[in-house]
Order: sequence, then structure tokens, then C-alpha cells
Amino acid sequence: MNKIPAAIFGASGMVGQRFASLLQNHPQIELVAAYSSDRSRGKTLGEIWRIPEIPLIEDVSSLKLEKLDVEDAAAKGVKIAFGALPADLARDVELVAASKGIAVFSNAGAYRMESDVPILIPEINFDHLNIVDVQRKNRNSKGFIVTNSNCSVAGLSVALKPLVDRLRFKRVFVSTYQAISGAGYPGVPSLDINANCLPFIKNEEEKMNREARKILGSFNGKSIDPRDIEVWAHCVRVPCRDGHLESVSILLDGQPPSVEELERIFDEFTGVPQELKLPTAPQQAIIVRKERDRPQPILDAMAGYPDRARGMAVSVGRIRIDGNLLRFFCLVHNTLRGGAGDSVLNAECAIHEGKT
Amino acid sequence: MNKIPAAIFGASGMVGQRFASLLQNHPQIELVAAYSSDRSRGKTLGEIWRIPEIPLIEDVSSLKLEKLDVEDAAAKGVKIAFGALPADLARDVELVAASKGIAVFSNAGAYRMESDVPILIPEINFDHLNIVDVQRKNRNSKGFIVTNSNCSVAGLSVALKPLVDRLRFKRVFVSTYQAISGAGYPGVPSLDINANCLPFIKNEEEKMNREARKILGSFNGKSIDPRDIEVWAHCVRVPCRDGHLESVSILLDGQPPSVEELERIFDEFTGVPQELKLPTAPQQAIIVRKERDRPQPILDAMAGYPDRARGMAVSVGRIRIDGNLLRFFCLVHNTLRGGAGDSVLNAECAIHEGKT
Amino acid sequence: MNKIPAAIFGASGMVGQRFASLLQNHPQIELVAAYSSDRSRGKTLGEIWRIPEIPLIEDVSSLKLEKLDVEDAAAKGVKIAFGALPADLARDVELVAASKGIAVFSNAGAYRMESDVPILIPEINFDHLNIVDVQRKNRNSKGFIVTNSNCSVAGLSVALKPLVDRLRFKRVFVSTYQAISGAGYPGVPSLDINANCLPFIKNEEEKMNREARKILGSFNGKSIDPRDIEVWAHCVRVPCRDGHLESVSILLDGQPPSVEELERIFDEFTGVPQELKLPTAPQQAIIVRKERDRPQPILDAMAGYPDRARGMAVSVGRIRIDGNLLRFFCLVHNTLRGGAGDSVLNAECAIHEGKT
Amino acid sequence: MNKIPAAIFGASGMVGQRFASLLQNHPQIELVAAYSSDRSRGKTLGEIWRIPEIPLIEDVSSLKLEKLDVEDAAAKGVKIAFGALPADLARDVELVAASKGIAVFSNAGAYRMESDVPILIPEINFDHLNIVDVQRKNRNSKGFIVTNSNCSVAGLSVALKPLVDRLRFKRVFVSTYQAISGAGYPGVPSLDINANCLPFIKNEEEKMNREARKILGSFNGKSIDPRDIEVWAHCVRVPCRDGHLESVSILLDGQPPSVEELERIFDEFTGVPQELKLPTAPQQAIIVRKERDRPQPILDAMAGYPDRARGMAVSVGRIRIDGNLLRFFCLVHNTLRGGAGDSVLNAECAIHEGKT
Repeated sequence: MNKIPAAIFGASGMVGQRFASLLQNHPQIELVAAYSSDRSRGKTLGEIWRIPEIPLIEDVSSLKLEKLDVEDAAAKGVKIAFGALPADLARDVELVAASKGIAVFSNAGAYRMESDVPILIPEINFDHLNIVDVQRKNRNSKGFIVTNSNCSVAGLSVALKPLVDRLRFKRVFVSTYQAISGAGYPGVPSLDINANCLPFIKNEEEKMNREARKILGSFNGKSIDPRDIEVWAHCVRVPCRDGHLESVSILLDGQPPSVEELERIFDEFTGVPQELKLPTAPQQAIIVRKERDRPQPILDAMAGYPDRARGMAVSVGRIRIDGNLLRFFCLVHNTLRGGAGDSVLNAECAIHEGKT
Repeated sequence: MNKIPAAIFGASGMVGQRFASLLQNHPQIELVAAYSSDRSRGKTLGEIWRIPEIPLIEDVSSLKLEKLDVEDAAAKGVKIAFGALPADLARDVELVAASKGIAVFSNAGAYRMESDVPILIPEINFDHLNIVDVQRKNRNSKGFIVTNSNCSVAGLSVALKPLVDRLRFKRVFVSTYQAISGAGYPGVPSLDINANCLPFIKNEEEKMNREARKILGSFNGKSIDPRDIEVWAHCVRVPCRDGHLESVSILLDGQPPSVEELERIFDEFTGVPQELKLPTAPQQAIIVRKERDRPQPILDAMAGYPDRARGMAVSVGRIRIDGNLLRFFCLVHNTLRGGAGDSVLNAECAIHEGKT
Repeated sequence: MNKIPAAIFGASGMVGQRFASLLQNHPQIELVAAYSSDRSRGKTLGEIWRIPEIPLIEDVSSLKLEKLDVEDAAAKGVKIAFGALPADLARDVELVAASKGIAVFSNAGAYRMESDVPILIPEINFDHLNIVDVQRKNRNSKGFIVTNSNCSVAGLSVALKPLVDRLRFKRVFVSTYQAISGAGYPGVPSLDINANCLPFIKNEEEKMNREARKILGSFNGKSIDPRDIEVWAHCVRVPCRDGHLESVSILLDGQPPSVEELERIFDEFTGVPQELKLPTAPQQAIIVRKERDRPQPILDAMAGYPDRARGMAVSVGRIRIDGNLLRFFCLVHNTLRGGAGDSVLNAECAIHEGKT
Repeated sequence: MNKIPAAIFGASGMVGQRFASLLQNHPQIELVAAYSSDRSRGKTLGEIWRIPEIPLIEDVSSLKLEKLDVEDAAAKGVKIAFGALPADLARDVELVAASKGIAVFSNAGAYRMESDVPILIPEINFDHLNIVDVQRKNRNSKGFIVTNSNCSVAGLSVALKPLVDRLRFKRVFVSTYQAISGAGYPGVPSLDINANCLPFIKNEEEKMNREARKILGSFNGKSIDPRDIEVWAHCVRVPCRDGHLESVSILLDGQPPSVEELERIFDEFTGVPQELKLPTAPQQAIIVRKERDRPQPILDAMAGYPDRARGMAVSVGRIRIDGNLLRFFCLVHNTLRGGAGDSVLNAECAIHEGKT
């Protein structure tokens, strides 16, 4: 099979670099261009590389960052674009790209809440991909935009999915412990976060609520009916490098399952990407940790660890039942399952479904 | 006035050292002996000092750590002992000390849940001090034991007190961001916590629930009727030095007040220690932070900062109302208001009440 | 005595804030204006405060940051300005201010190496202050500019001064462990320094050599003859908040003194500021640490600790003699003795000498 | 080829775990037993695993830690033992093991300075392996002991080797920035190192000098004639996880080469392990970094990065020439090239030479 030519919009940031690391050696997609909106233009990806645990292959390392130019991408035959631009820039660029027939898989927040744009986490809502047909019609566009979710809500939504399918509850209390890579680069000044916690991340708490409702909602053929739940979050930055840890408390209606049943429910959770054995799909969408002090960012969010999940599995641990109260922790790699990794998986879904 | 001779049981640890820092230059209490249960015996307090921001005066710095010996304390005329021993050691030592007429103000958990021992946070439950009369009778003892609370619950309870007096609610969801000094010394290995979070602190979540119920309960003349609330906690260690940050979510019954009213309620909260202007009492028990990203451990838990509260005030910030959901953050200095500072304040209350 | 009206040029940064903290309650100087070159204009000093261990008094906290305007300063009667601007901005502003009769005490590097401008560390080179008379004549100016040194070289030079006066050597090998506050705010991105070391600080190694030669040089009535030594430095950023630690190795010509003699030499080192008991002078310019693992940033660079030196003393420890090799560590608070504190002390010297 | 049965003595610590990670899937060696001297006995390697970036294969993960017992190892047919015990324990155990015919490759310091025991870094001193014949005779032993060096000296010695072969100098000034994993587990208390530097590591500075002299010395057929150089070190612990950074200053006799020549000299440095393409040998023993701010622990000491050197290459950067002064930084992965990795490479050398 000929590989599909792809570009990254915004290749110099943390998520953009994750896109590059995931696309090297990809069996279906070939990275042919890397665009940057900042002063790293002209440098190669290798020169600006900041992901120590994943070395770049020569072809990708020597790719030069170019000035953002959708015409140029189209001219290079790009069929798929991965979006890692700031939201305000993304708003224009992604729409133009879609109008030129490019399938855009974006980490940007610009279009997430539009009614004809899916927030796709394919283990949860594979069928939401079909909104792109509505979107094409609405916008009279050959291409389309598919988004991945906010990084914190990605981990939470995956953990909630097997629960909403089996248990009754409406309120989810969550507190986050978010790594510094989630703020991009240069991101958080070291004087603010060194040996400190910052109990504020702009718009994050609101995003967690509205995106979870949409991701866990159902496609009615025209748009998404949001799930009737409330996610009430406290979002906090902590001095970790990668991995957003989240504490979750849920008051259940009715008799709760046992901890063992819950472990089984999480462990057995699987979705279309696993069924289709898509290249970027983790073997298990959720990894249950039974140790008393897991998951931890250092141990459970390093790319490549464990089980070859390469940052695409969500870890769940410390599951506790107390009356009808369910508590647990989940952990998501914020730039992989919570960012670039999810969009690459989304592209693989679209390729499989013949949407691209 | 002659100062009351006092000793520290367990003077080498983090809380023990905080006792020493608070007792130097104390107007009513004079530190005459420092006992240690570990291998730091024979060294002076100055030699083992680990609280950079508070230098010791010469008299206290040169005090030698002695082998733990209650007889020796009694022989030295010690009338007040401050307890900072591990719980298992504290169990024996504190009881013997009380039997010898010593008033023990303890940070240890050994006796906190005994029915005739108060967990005293005098801004909240000054009258609980009167249980010591019951205790003396029960145990036929001239001295008595008064405890301070677990460090995390101290911050939460102070923040909850003005709320339980005005609003109706039964469930409190809390997630903690706890500093490493809370685990003592040597405490947490650096390999475990460097750039990491640990989502487990032994027994901490259970303590938060049961101690909050007792602290906020009411004295019926014989024992404490616990407050009918549930504190559902997730406790996490983070790589900060001092100060436990806590996210709090409460579902209110009935119409909630506005954010402005809540700020006023917290700001105006005051108690007996403020009224009596006790030496260790903060001017304000609660400091309301109106910035969008406060409180923070580095900015709000440093001893001496701000308002000369010297780690005895609880900071509250990011107050949000959403329907009947109230959310906010609070921050407590874990070894001052959440440890040694509270016990010194308790001793001042007992002195004022003529209990010692 | 009426206090001398003073302003800060560049009051929003780390050094600018240190100036504010040092000038509150100053017995001779009154802060009447705070100028900022950045977007913090319009805010009060209290609103942008980032020095947790030193609370601001009300008068200083409510001072509003104004647009940088030397005319305005002159109109307000400002006689002394403290400079904390970036070097390029400082170049213009400081010269204009001096021309208007203002005595400028600057942390900026712009004029440090000019032949008629002193780098004053008054314990070392009090008499260099007299170059300002040459400067006034040269530049036909009523005011003048006095600079403090680079932060790393401040600690090294103080430690070297008693040695160059007694021992013969020409080469100093030094490696630094520099805190993040030395890079200002926002300064170092947290992704670069979290759990990492950065072995490069722009121009720092060159500055250490040329400034040390000038500071330790001698005033010949017209200019400074540099000291004939070489400082060969490696400069590294480490994830500490305040305090630059430096390892120092010196090959001595001739018989070295004993460690005890060296401890005495450092301990007895004193200068004009100590003699004059100037308000900002530390009781001892050098504090000798005899513990085997000192000095440390956390324990020895916190403002106010120890000995009320308030960050103005240099700590020296781990003194070792091995043949004719002398090794030791020194530690300097980078924004106090290595920045704002030194300039305030310089102003006090100038006031005493009737230069202002 | 049948694989050689091997054991780890002291498998629970940081270096012991590194041994396990390196021996899984080893082409010549099979791990058949893991012994531990501490309370982790009875647990599996998987249960105590603390190396997030390298997942264990099932066979190794399920290996149970057994009570240290050399007889048991011999009974299990163990021919090679990797030593990661504390020095005092190692002293007895390793000698007994050697007497029973086991070839011991040890990270412990116990025998490093014995005249008939090599400190082997095979790129530097492959022929020192032949001392084991002297050792066998001396000690009338079928097995033998080969040690790897102290972690800091490993990086320095590799960087010095191509220099001592070409340039004349006797004095090396070095300052270290050592990661916390170098102190083992639990190792450094977090309260000591969080946002701090510790300018003291017991015996480390002495080890650097005496081990470098031996490693770079020459085998005279009976023992090692030490190289005539002096390594004058300052050793400092910094809050990084893995990787010891070192600043190096050398005064050269005679005309120094250019920076470009030095880069070439480092880059072309190669040794017997590279020639023999031994399984654990890095492709290049030294990786030259030309960026202005490298090497860095986070970017250059992560296992597997870069060039598949898996922590076995030493990175050298910031090479500067100033007169006859040569300065550079080097970085070594302290538990791989500076520990377990070197000993595994040593075992491969011994296997190749038919010593086992």
C-alpha cells in the first residue's frame, strides 16, 4: 500500500513533536511536511527535539520546519494534516485545509464544540466519526475536521466509559494533578512551579465538563446528544514532566459493584481500535493497577511503558467502594492519549472507514 | 510572670523542630528539655536544625537532645510537654506523663479518637478543652492529654467551620496536594517523589473523615457528639516542601450564598484565640485570597507570611458557586496550624483556662 | 534626618522586587516611585509580589508600577535610582538619569566594564567609589552610575578577597550551581529545568572572569588596574529557587595555610560597611560553615537566615587543603548580595561619603 | 550456543534492577537467580520495579528475590554473578563466590583497589582483564572478581582516555552534578534534595582520584602502574533522577589542539568492545554534542537515547579552548556505563576472552 502523505501544522511544540514521533515508521501514513508558526522555522525537527525517550529516525529528524502554508501542503499532495496550533491560529488554518480536501485531525480546541465536528476517542465513540459526513455537507467541503479532546478529559472519559454503560450516576467530582508538558513550551515559568502547585489552569475545568458530556454522548444521525452527567473539576498544575493524574469520586445510584467487579470491568473494556488492531491502538485501553500507590506519573506515564501501550492506555488504580461512593485515580499521558496519540488513532479510524 | 517549664517529646523530627522554633521567646512557656527517641541524642538542636527560614536563638540552639525519660522531665519541673513522637511510642509516654501531672499537647495520633481526649482547634471547638476534666476523672490523673489534628484535616476543618455554622450539607469531597515535610524525616525517598506524585498516604483518608467529624462535633458534657458529615478524601503526596493544598467540593442543600458572601463569611471568621489575643493565634484564622491562582504552597505556606500569621492561618481561594455546588481550595501549613503550632496554641488556651 | 527620595527602574522583575523589599522601612532612603518597562504597569507591587518569605508593608505594597520616565522621576525629586532593567534599556535610561543629577545604583550589566564606572562590593573595594568623581568630570554629569557585579562573581569575589590579600595564586577554577531566580521572570521554562541541569548560561563565564579582575583590582586615581588573576568558570543552572553555590579550586604558590587558619581568615574578614555599621551590611561578610555538607541553597541562602545577614553574607564551607591545592564551596544569595542588596549597600556607602 | 547461567547479588537496589533490565533477552547470559540482602526478599522483580522506561519481560518480572546464598547459586549452576551489594556485604560474598568458581562482575567498591583486581572499562583498559590470571593464582581460586568503577569516575575516565593518549597534562579539575539514583534506594531523603544541592558525597572525591589513576594506568604483567595524573573533584548531589554531569578543566602542557580537532578525537574514540561488536557495547563510546547547552541529564542520560547507546555512551559537549586551558562537560548514565552496564560489558569481554 502506498502511504498517505501527511503534514503537521504546528510541529515545533510539545504536541507537534509527539505527532512527529508517532508518525515515524507509521505503516499507513508518511510525514512529508512539518509547518511551524513560530521562530523555529528553518530549523530541523532534530534540532528542536525535546522528547528524550524517543529518538527520531534520520528522515524525520532532518525534516525542516516550514512557514505555515496550506496551499503548499495541498501542492505537496498532503491528504492528512495533524493539528497542533494554538486555538486562534487553528481556527482559520484548519477550515481552509478542510476546504481543500485535507482531512484534519486536530489537537486544537477551536472546533471541538461545533455541532458537526466530533471529539473522537474511538474506544468510546467510534460512530461519532460519521458526523464528518454531516460536516462535509454543511460546509460544502471535501475534507473535514476531527478533534481529539482536552488532555485531562481524555483520561477521565476513557475511565468513565465502562462505568456509564453499566452504572447510574450523574455527578463526577474530579481533581487533577497536571504535568508541565500540558502547558506547552516555554509554558510554565520554572519560578512558578518549582517545588510548588498552581491551583488554576485557564478554562480547563469548563472544558472538562462540556467535552466529557459530548464525548460520552450519542450520535443521533445529525449531531451529538450530550450525556447527562456533570463533571465538576479542580484543575491543578504540579511539577511533573508528563502524565496527568486525576482523583475521581462518583456517587452511584443503586447498589455498587464490588472492587473486584470494577477491576474486571475496567480490565475488560475494549473498543473498535482494539478489534481492528489499529497501529496506534493500545492492546488494552485501560490498565488496572492493583498496587496500593499507583498510578504514578513517573511509573505509568512514560511513553513505551508498560505493555507496549506507548502512552495510549489510561491507568486506573486505588479503586475504593464506600457505601454508594466510588473513588479511584486515573492517569493519562497528556500529549499521547490526551493529545497527538489520540489524533493519530483517529486518523487510522478514518482511513479504515474510507473517510480520507 | 514566671514562665511555665516545658519539654518536647520527640524533638528531632520535623514537628519537634517546629515546636522548638515556636517556643523560643515564648512569653508564657520556657523550653527546658528536648527529648529524642532516635540516634540524634547527644546532638544539640542547632546541629540538627532543618528549618532554614527560622534561625534559633542561642539558648534553644544549644539545647542538647536527651534520651526520652518522663521521670527526668518531672524531676526538671516540666509542667507542659509537647508531643511529636511516632504514635506507637506516644501511646505509652504520653499516658505516663499525664499520670505524673504533666499537661501533654500532642501531635501524635495515639489518643486522638479516645472519647475523653479532645482534638482541639480552638477557633473551632474551644469548649472541647473541657473534656480534660472528664479525662482526669476517668483516668485518675493529675495531668491530661490534648491532641492537635492530622495535618490535612486541620486546614479543611478550619475552612469548614464557618460553613457548617451557616449552610446545610453532609458530604465534602476533598483531594489533597501534600508537602513532603508531612512525612517527617527522612520520610519520602527522593527517587519516589522527584518530579512525581504519590497517590497514597497511609491511613490519611480515613483520618480526615473521622477527625473532621469529631473536631466539628459538639461537647455534651461527657463526650463529643460527632458532626453528621462525611469527608471523602483522596490523599496525594506532591514534591513541595511545606503546605498542604486541598481542593474542596460541597453539594449544598438549599440556596447557596454568593461568592462575595462566602468571601465575607470566611474573612470574618474568628474564634476565642483571636478574642483573647493569645500569643500564637493568627490575627485572622482564615485569609481569603482573591487572585485567580491562589493559594499556592510557595506563596501562602511560608512561615511568617503573610500578615504575621506565622503559618497559623488557613488560606482559602478560588471560591466558585455553580448551581448548588460550592468549590474552593484551602491551604494549611502542615507542621504549624496542622501540627506544632496548633498544639502550642492549645497550650495557651489551657493556660488561660487555668487547666495547667 | 529627612529620608532621600528614591525610585526603582524595572521594579517588576526578581531583582526589582528585591529592591522594594530592601527599601521598605529603610532608615535613610524612601521609595517614592517604581517604574516598569513591561506589561505589569498599572498594577501595584503587592499584586505582582513573588517573594513569599518577605511580606510588604502597606505603603510599598500599594505603590503602583509606572511607565519608565526619567523626567517624571526628576520631577518627583528622586535623588537615588536603583536599576534593575535589562542591559539594553539600562544603557539609555541610566545615562540620562545620571545627567539629571540622579545617583544610579544598578544591577544592569550595561556600564560595568566602563573605565570610569565602579563595580562596587564595598567590603572589597570601598575606595573604587571614588571613580565616580572621575566619571562626573568625564561625562560632565551631576549624577553618576555605580554598578553591582554579576550575581555569581559577587559570591566568588567576596570569598577570594581575604585570600588574594594573603596568598599567592593566579588561577581560580570555579563551577557554579545557579538558582532559577538568577534568570529573572519568566526566565527558565520549567520543561527545561525540571529534574534537569543546564550547562550553559549566556555570557556568564566571561563575565565572571572580567568582573572578578576589576572588582579585585586597585584604583590608581583615574581608573582600575585589574587584578592579575584568571577565573575559569563552568556555569550551570540547577533546579533551586534562590542561591548560587560555587565550587572553587585554587593552586597556591608556596606553602598553604592550614584549614583552621583559613577558617579564621574567612571568619575575620571584614570591611568598611561592617565598620560603619551600615544598615544593609551583614554583621559578618563571610559565614564559615564547618558542617561537612554545607553551604546548601535551602539552608544558607534563605533571606533572613542566619545571623540576620539577610542574604548579604557569603557562606563558605568544605575548606580542604591537599598539597598546594585549596578547595572550598561558597554560596551567595544571587538577588541580594549578588544583586539588589549589594546596590542598596552601595547607596549607603555613597550617602556616607557625601557623594549623593 | 547455550546461554551462561547468571545471578544478581543484591537485585533489589537501583543497580541491581539495572542488571536485571540489561540481562533480559541477553544473547549470551541467562538470569537464573536474583538474590537480595534486604526485606524485599520473597517479592518478584516485577513487584519492586522502579525503572519506568524499561518494562520487564515476563520471565524476568516473575523472578523471585531470594535470600543471599552463594551455595545456592553454585548449586543452581551459576557461572557468572553480577554484584550490586553494599561494600561491606560484598567483601565476604564476592570472595566466597569466586572461590567456588563463579566469575563475579561487581559494582561494589570492596575490591576495586586491590592490586590483583581490575577496574575494567574495556574501551580504556581491555588488557587489565588479564590481571584475573594473577588473581586466580594469588588467591588459588577458580573464579575471579572484576569490578566496574565508581559512577562519576566512569564518565570522566572515558572522556579522559583519548586525551591522555594524545596530550600532556597532570591535573584535572572536575565538579560533579550527580543524580539521586546514584545514592541508591531509599537513598537521599526528599527533604534534603528537593529544590536543593548537597555539596558532599561521602568518599566520592577520593574515589574519583584513585580510581581514575588505576583505570588509566598500565598493566605490567603483575599489577597496574597508576597513571600519573591528579583528579581534583568537588562532588555535589543535585535533584535529577539519572545521569551525572561533570565539568572538567585541564591545563595542558604545550600547544592545545583546536576545538574541531578535539571534537574529532572524541568522536573517533573507539575500543575493543566496539571492534568486537559486543552486545552491550555502544556504537560510539563517546557522543560529541555540538549544541551550546548540552549534554543535559534529561536529554542525554535517558536509557535508549540517543543512537541506541542505551546509557553506555559518555556524552561530551561545550568543548572550549582558552590559551592552554581545555574545558568541557561530560555526562554519564550513572547506573549503566557508571554501574551495571559496565559490568555486563565486562562479562561479555571475559566471555570473549574465554576467562569464564
